[in-house]
Amino acid sequence: MNYNYLNFFQIQFVEDKQEFSRFPTKTGRRSLSRSISQSSTDSYGSAASYTDSSDDETSPRDKTQLNSKGTSDFCVKNIKQAEFGRREIEIAEQDMSALISLRKRAQGEKPLAGAKIVGCTHITAQTAVLIETLVALGAQCRWTACNIYSTQNEVAAALSEIGVAVFAWKGESEDDFWWCIDKCVNMEGWQPNMILDDGGDLTHWVYKKYPNVFKKIRGIVEESVTGVHRLYQLSKAGKLCVPAMNVNDSVTKQKFDNLYCCRESILDGLKRTTDVMFGGKQVVVCGYGEVGKGCTAALKAMGSIVYVTEIDPICALQACMDGFRVVKLNEVIRQVDVIITCTGNKNVVTRDQLDRMKNGSIVCNMGHSNTEIDVASLRTPELTWERVRSQVDHVIWPDGKRVILLAEGRLLNLSCSTVPTFVLSITATTQALALIELYNAPEGRYKQDVYLLPKKMDEYVASLHLPTFDAHLTELSDEQAKYLGLNKNGPFKPNYYRYKHASKIP
Amino acid sequence: MNYNYLNFFQIQFVEDKQEFSRFPTKTGRRSLSRSISQSSTDSYGSAASYTDSSDDETSPRDKTQLNSKGTSDFCVKNIKQAEFGRREIEIAEQDMSALISLRKRAQGEKPLAGAKIVGCTHITAQTAVLIETLVALGAQCRWTACNIYSTQNEVAAALSEIGVAVFAWKGESEDDFWWCIDKCVNMEGWQPNMILDDGGDLTHWVYKKYPNVFKKIRGIVEESVTGVHRLYQLSKAGKLCVPAMNVNDSVTKQKFDNLYCCRESILDGLKRTTDVMFGGKQVVVCGYGEVGKGCTAALKAMGSIVYVTEIDPICALQACMDGFRVVKLNEVIRQVDVIITCTGNKNVVTRDQLDRMKNGSIVCNMGHSNTEIDVASLRTPELTWERVRSQVDHVIWPDGKRVILLAEGRLLNLSCSTVPTFVLSITATTQALALIELYNAPEGRYKQDVYLLPKKMDEYVASLHLPTFDAHLTELSDEQAKYLGLNKNGPFKPNYYRYKHASKIP
Amino acid sequence: MNYNYLNFFQIQFVEDKQEFSRFPTKTGRRSLSRSISQSSTDSYGSAASYTDSSDDETSPRDKTQLNSKGTSDFCVKNIKQAEFGRREIEIAEQDMSALISLRKRAQGEKPLAGAKIVGCTHITAQTAVLIETLVALGAQCRWTACNIYSTQNEVAAALSEIGVAVFAWKGESEDDFWWCIDKCVNMEGWQPNMILDDGGDLTHWVYKKYPNVFKKIRGIVEESVTGVHRLYQLSKAGKLCVPAMNVNDSVTKQKFDNLYCCRESILDGLKRTTDVMFGGKQVVVCGYGEVGKGCTAALKAMGSIVYVTEIDPICALQACMDGFRVVKLNEVIRQVDVIITCTGNKNVVTRDQLDRMKNGSIVCNMGHSNTEIDVASLRTPELTWERVRSQVDHVIWPDGKRVILLAEGRLLNLSCSTVPTFVLSITATTQALALIELYNAPEGRYKQDVYLLPKKMDEYVASLHLPTFDAHLTELSDEQAKYLGLNKNGPFKPNYYRYKHASKIP
Amino acid sequence: MNYNYLNFFQIQFVEDKQEFSRFPTKTGRRSLSRSISQSSTDSYGSAASYTDSSDDETSPRDKTQLNSKGTSDFCVKNIKQAEFGRREIEIAEQDMSALISLRKRAQGEKPLAGAKIVGCTHITAQTAVLIETLVALGAQCRWTACNIYSTQNEVAAALSEIGVAVFAWKGESEDDFWWCIDKCVNMEGWQPNMILDDGGDLTHWVYKKYPNVFKKIRGIVEESVTGVHRLYQLSKAGKLCVPAMNVNDSVTKQKFDNLYCCRESILDGLKRTTDVMFGGKQVVVCGYGEVGKGCTAALKAMGSIVYVTEIDPICALQACMDGFRVVKLNEVIRQVDVIITCTGNKNVVTRDQLDRMKNGSIVCNMGHSNTEIDVASLRTPELTWERVRSQVDHVIWPDGKRVILLAEGRLLNLSCSTVPTFVLSITATTQALALIELYNAPEGRYKQDVYLLPKKMDEYVASLHLPTFDAHLTELSDEQAKYLGLNKNGPFKPNYYRYKHASKIP
Repeated sequence: MNYNYLNFFQIQFVEDKQEFSRFPTKTGRRSLSRSISQSSTDSYGSAASYTDSSDDETSPRDKTQLNSKGTSDFCVKNIKQAEFGRREIEIAEQDMSALISLRKRAQGEKPLAGAKIVGCTHITAQTAVLIETLVALGAQCRWTACNIYSTQNEVAAALSEIGVAVFAWKGESEDDFWWCIDKCVNMEGWQPNMILDDGGDLTHWVYKKYPNVFKKIRGIVEESVTGVHRLYQLSKAGKLCVPAMNVNDSVTKQKFDNLYCCRESILDGLKRTTDVMFGGKQVVVCGYGEVGKGCTAALKAMGSIVYVTEIDPICALQACMDGFRVVKLNEVIRQVDVIITCTGNKNVVTRDQLDRMKNGSIVCNMGHSNTEIDVASLRTPELTWERVRSQVDHVIWPDGKRVILLAEGRLLNLSCSTVPTFVLSITATTQALALIELYNAPEGRYKQDVYLLPKKMDEYVASLHLPTFDAHLTELSDEQAKYLGLNKNGPFKPNYYRYKHASKIP
Repeated sequence: MNYNYLNFFQIQFVEDKQEFSRFPTKTGRRSLSRSISQSSTDSYGSAASYTDSSDDETSPRDKTQLNSKGTSDFCVKNIKQAEFGRREIEIAEQDMSALISLRKRAQGEKPLAGAKIVGCTHITAQTAVLIETLVALGAQCRWTACNIYSTQNEVAAALSEIGVAVFAWKGESEDDFWWCIDKCVNMEGWQPNMILDDGGDLTHWVYKKYPNVFKKIRGIVEESVTGVHRLYQLSKAGKLCVPAMNVNDSVTKQKFDNLYCCRESILDGLKRTTDVMFGGKQVVVCGYGEVGKGCTAALKAMGSIVYVTEIDPICALQACMDGFRVVKLNEVIRQVDVIITCTGNKNVVTRDQLDRMKNGSIVCNMGHSNTEIDVASLRTPELTWERVRSQVDHVIWPDGKRVILLAEGRLLNLSCSTVPTFVLSITATTQALALIELYNAPEGRYKQDVYLLPKKMDEYVASLHLPTFDAHLTELSDEQAKYLGLNKNGPFKPNYYRYKHASKIP
Repeated sequence: MNYNYLNFFQIQFVEDKQEFSRFPTKTGRRSLSRSISQSSTDSYGSAASYTDSSDDETSPRDKTQLNSKGTSDFCVKNIKQAEFGRREIEIAEQDMSALISLRKRAQGEKPLAGAKIVGCTHITAQTAVLIETLVALGAQCRWTACNIYSTQNEVAAALSEIGVAVFAWKGESEDDFWWCIDKCVNMEGWQPNMILDDGGDLTHWVYKKYPNVFKKIRGIVEESVTGVHRLYQLSKAGKLCVPAMNVNDSVTKQKFDNLYCCRESILDGLKRTTDVMFGGKQVVVCGYGEVGKGCTAALKAMGSIVYVTEIDPICALQACMDGFRVVKLNEVIRQVDVIITCTGNKNVVTRDQLDRMKNGSIVCNMGHSNTEIDVASLRTPELTWERVRSQVDHVIWPDGKRVILLAEGRLLNLSCSTVPTFVLSITATTQALALIELYNAPEGRYKQDVYLLPKKMDEYVASLHLPTFDAHLTELSDEQAKYLGLNKNGPFKPNYYRYKHASKIP
Repeated sequence: MNYNYLNFFQIQFVEDKQEFSRFPTKTGRRSLSRSISQSSTDSYGSAASYTDSSDDETSPRDKTQLNSKGTSDFCVKNIKQAEFGRREIEIAEQDMSALISLRKRAQGEKPLAGAKIVGCTHITAQTAVLIETLVALGAQCRWTACNIYSTQNEVAAALSEIGVAVFAWKGESEDDFWWCIDKCVNMEGWQPNMILDDGGDLTHWVYKKYPNVFKKIRGIVEESVTGVHRLYQLSKAGKLCVPAMNVNDSVTKQKFDNLYCCRESILDGLKRTTDVMFGGKQVVVCGYGEVGKGCTAALKAMGSIVYVTEIDPICALQACMDGFRVVKLNEVIRQVDVIITCTGNKNVVTRDQLDRMKNGSIVCNMGHSNTEIDVASLRTPELTWERVRSQVDHVIWPDGKRVILLAEGRLLNLSCSTVPTFVLSITATTQALALIELYNAPEGRYKQDVYLLPKKMDEYVASLHLPTFDAHLTELSDEQAKYLGLNKNGPFKPNYYRYKHASKIP
């Protein structure tokens, strides 16, 4: 879910600079965003919602803690919170039955026996279910956080208690962040052979600091847009000497992250921040990709009148057929109650347009970055900003007009809503399968490149989640499989079928 | 729209036999289906609905007719119907403004000047708008029908009246069919350089009978699944010596033919045949591809309770998220009121299942062929068939139970509904653009192979249809185009982006 | 379903004239509409769709026919069609299980033993199921048609064959119409004690011609708006000397006739007449009552962009909350593709507005009468009318613009769609229950007035239809019934609760 | 919005006891619920969400405060918060344009000049807009809170600052509650002539303590179900000596409170408490009244699979036609993920059923009282309750199964969601109009009874809210009004039309 790009290792990677310059740097409030990845410092509200705001001010690095088995190979806020963390993990397990099911199916054969995995992800109850699955399948794991704010301290404690070497706490400094990563990788007598990363910070640390270790890695599994982008950069530069799996773009994850998840989070995000009634509201959704399709469907169903803006005529025609007026933003800017951006573009809503909005109208962003609304243009002396709730600013014009800006133009679904456990389950299951695949793949199946999850495994992830819905798959008869030219066990949408003639397009 | 396969040239193409054997042969009622394409003999109800059933029994081949300009290079039922046909064409023009718009935009430069096109399509008012557009853009055209039943005689007359050489009438014999094709191609002093085909009969006639002509063709544009399949066969066999354009699989056409068109035609087809009330009915839709998604969405909206069967876990998970129970057919067979098949598979509904259906339940097919319901299994002595309306059979069990079978298991949307002019407009515009592209492409852009329409042209077809909906596209600013790395005029979804890593899937 | 008013007995009922003058007289094509009810001469397409167009020109009145039992107390087109009619009835029975269920439940006690019912309704397979139910419950029946076009001759034959005295055929003259009614009522040695009417013609015939018979009637059950209106007129004039039941306004029937039925028939009616694609079309629906709610919901679901016009602010606010722009017709008249009227008002669409509509736009009426579109204003010399299909006229302006007028402004759902058997089943069941109630009610329960069906019986009609949907009612426990102050068997929405304070509104 | 009943003045009103016994007493946690109304002590989360939790522990009764004009006729937490409260009121005004519009229209004529209104409502920014409207229309107001928790202290301060005599603060004791009411009524030289009440506590205080004042009241406007019930009790007992207006049952308010409001709050309430993903979830909604219709529509739109239980066959048939399976709860209890009760009944979900629910399933109530789920049955020793968030309890069975109970079975929409300002605006506008009507009604229009808002005023409330949606009403022409028999300015749905035959139902 790390959509934002980051300015990682700016000094080292000067050759990448121009490429990176497409992605605007978030500046201002946090000076440390200059040197570590932006995603690692994004506020990440929901996952940590149960977490205590402990008053103990001592840095975990300065404490010596032992778990009940007497070991100390971890560094967390307070090992005594383990029991509370265990409860959180157990509750999460209830909604991640796919992972539990995978754990049970593969436990006998221990497909990860011998795997030494270093991981760098958000450390939450859901991730803990993943980590404990990896352990159950035979892996040894050392783990750190990909974000300095998102760690659930009690979960980190619970993992440390059962012997996973976790180095993470909520509220790390930049120095802490790299120290924790290093502690994961740099251990005498133990050398990782797999990497599970979310954002690319761990991968680059190993690549830069421990090139000899890096060369012996059997596979990297990367979860985020950012990290995947970095891997392609490395690959393009001929420096990626290990196979990597891009799990961010797996079909299942994409569908759930975008269409289905946004369909719900647009309503949730708007409601939690503004209590707006949807019925009768006029809303313009900029962009009719998967995210826009999800947002418009939800709002239409709730009785809003929805307009769409698009640059692509095919998407525009889809919007027409789905019952939306396709307009230019300027045509409706004076009448709409809500603007939602989902384009991935920049300056989709300009100051000039914000000037013309109605009093009380709402502006927010569901797209891939915080560039879509020109928020910077609102930081001028004649406008007053009033923070009325967390994530809610009233920007007040000299004539008293208020425009309600949510999450300062950052992603509404990340800032003001929650990611359903079900979506996290799909991600975690995909990560586990990718690790198993890379670790067990026969020599030569994967080269030094970035791969998508094989379609069949994508289908397997989906199938593991069907029991949640008590959904029953139909099985092909031999005769039918032959008729369709398919293997009875899939993949059912063969790659060749779909992309068959693609290379012929001039 | 020719989904059914055909047993074309069975004798000549013995080498293709095994490939073709996947597609079952329709037998029985029409012996001529042995030797010409099945699609060319399919009943094709809607388009010809206005057509008279003239009493003149004389074969057009035996008549000499002159149009008002005194020429006789055509063969139609009755040239005197031209005026009536002209009115039909004018009415069709009203709903095909995209084509008219293309006509106007390209008329000055005559991009088809010098093109000599032979065409073989349904001859309807909509096709006439296409043909007259080609003429307006500079082409010379000779035309014949791809189906022996579908010709609107008065439209053929109207085209002949303005000088297009049309050879077609409603109710041709098999011999007539080939005679007409031959008359189009074989004309002294005139040699075609472009082919527009729908089903592949014309292409194969030229390929077989006039190999020298075939070699000089600059391009073939093929509309149907069947014809495209034949072209790929030829290509695979190394015998396709000209570039061909597969317009059947263009994005725009696919979306409209499947999702949007089926969303409406499932309701229309069921209503016209059975007058069934949708509200409260329990329906099972087999297959959750684009067609299944369209059918389920429409029925859910009308108050039916819809179940889905699927073999592919990814599609099954989509069905779950869209609010449908995913079941095996046997779980619900005793309770459902309607079964709709959309799988492309065979024997999806078996005799055993039909035996267990409720009295008064309806069975129909929206998929790609008439194999989905095992209709043959119902032709046993203990079952009575009662034809209660056109396309509606009651199959009656010994205990009096009736199952209502629509269109004998053939495609409901073709047999019992109509194809909206808007969809025909998209197809015709795509065909016209494909002809222009192939005719004008610089040397080397296209090899001797089958191509998809370039994405940008797909987008152009879409953009030509936006004015119908008064839809206004947003244009990228220079800055935004640069930010996104796109050309301001598209294509907006670059091919590389989408298919980038496809070849890496092991 | 007889929404249109009629000019019945204009000479006799001069005292009613002013009241009646609200309802415009349809003139023109049929001179007989002056003297019999308009509804009795409305074209009534669907129900008779299976009926043969027999070539036998002899009037049934001039033939002597015997059924197989040797009796001749009937007058139908051709008694030999009885077998075919029986099949139609059997098919109808399959969709009218509620009536069959009622037949079974009440058959033992014969609640209509001694009832002598004269009926005047459409004579269709569905009505036959009703009539045979009445007979099964003990009644003697004599029957005639309420419409000169709607009789299914073979059904009339089948009823006559089993001994029901039917006097009706398709294509009666006005004189035939009254002759048939009289034959039903005026039979030596047999005097009716119950009336089942649809339109009021039978009731008024008895009232006028046989006042002594009329006084001894135990109850009248009236189905149509028209007939109910007439009964209230009689009641107001103090001339209604028997209790009458208004089954037109029963809750169940109203809901099904309007919201649920129109939701489907708007799509069906538009599709059958124009093959229009709904997706992306801009539609304005005039009136947001139950009919308007059904139409807008269906079109929105199919991807149309729907506007609403309203005069009532409460309904307008509902439209807003349901996601529709509420506009004045003039605001959108130039841009919409379809206008649908559902107001019950007159001149909702004026010539001035029709002048401003787009080329190719469609105008139709789903409201209560043919007054909503000012069709008369289109019959001027400068406009050309072109009948392109049954029920479809192109009205052509001097500049070539075409407006597509459906059913000449009459009810689209009656003229161009069908009434689902399920709705007819609800009506028929309600009629049967009303007859049972009136016939068995204790002295004094009903006075000489017009009554609604008791709520409990309305609920009973609904409950009889639940098995069709395999719907299972929850039953109140004794404790719950006590808590809610309800009888466990209903009625569940007590009248007092709903209407309690109504009389207090000043 | 006060649905819960209360045991008010149990000692005094012994004669009402049997009637009241239908409504179960909430016992336990709050002993004071014995003597003041239950609604007055309900937690009321949303409205007070901005309110500070000030640390000043001094009781307002013990402080002397002066506003800036030097007066002290009020008692609030802290008059210095007035400025902050003013901002809250100004923000609320933006969403209550109907009230502002009413203020402007009626300000010139001062229709409430001379009115002396005592009010007892929630004291929030929205109520403040109402109160200031009443003042602007000429009234003098004294105000107190109807709930001991819901007062926004800063709003109370802002009102006091401009001279409204407010006696209320957040966190009153029972004694404070009555003291505040008394201070409003009992002021030397000032005697109220109008009452605006929400819950009936104020009304009964005046009735009991100041019978002479009560007799001179010109009208009571009551907002809550509870208060309305009490008024009918008084009326039935012949003790209501003044006219009262029941604004709870106005058409507009009912529609918004139930269907439209619940459609949104069910999603909001579930999401805020559980972060559940709706897609694919199986949900059973008990009761298909307006609330149930709203809940099911929303969940269906979000991709849930929804079942309905009903006792009333008419509602059950509606559910069928709307596309829901109608089941008994026991049929689906083992498979559903969520149960939502909306029946108004008791013990709709029993312990026995809770025992059979799935691990992780959610139970909540959207109905009229906290009786629907048998929560008491869950308070047994073998079950463990775990409070995981505010309003969220995990009830844990001995085998580890968790059922998630929301708001302890109280109203989810009040406890865990917010009431949109728009709905509050409708309520407040209705209250203002009711006060104007009662205060200005000519002698004799209203007797000593309980009245509904006249239909025309209901329509007026609706019309005042249309501009919010930029909705444009169509106006009847003279000719149309005559045709329909309506006044051009409404009412448009005449009372006589709707309720015409009601009294005839036996």
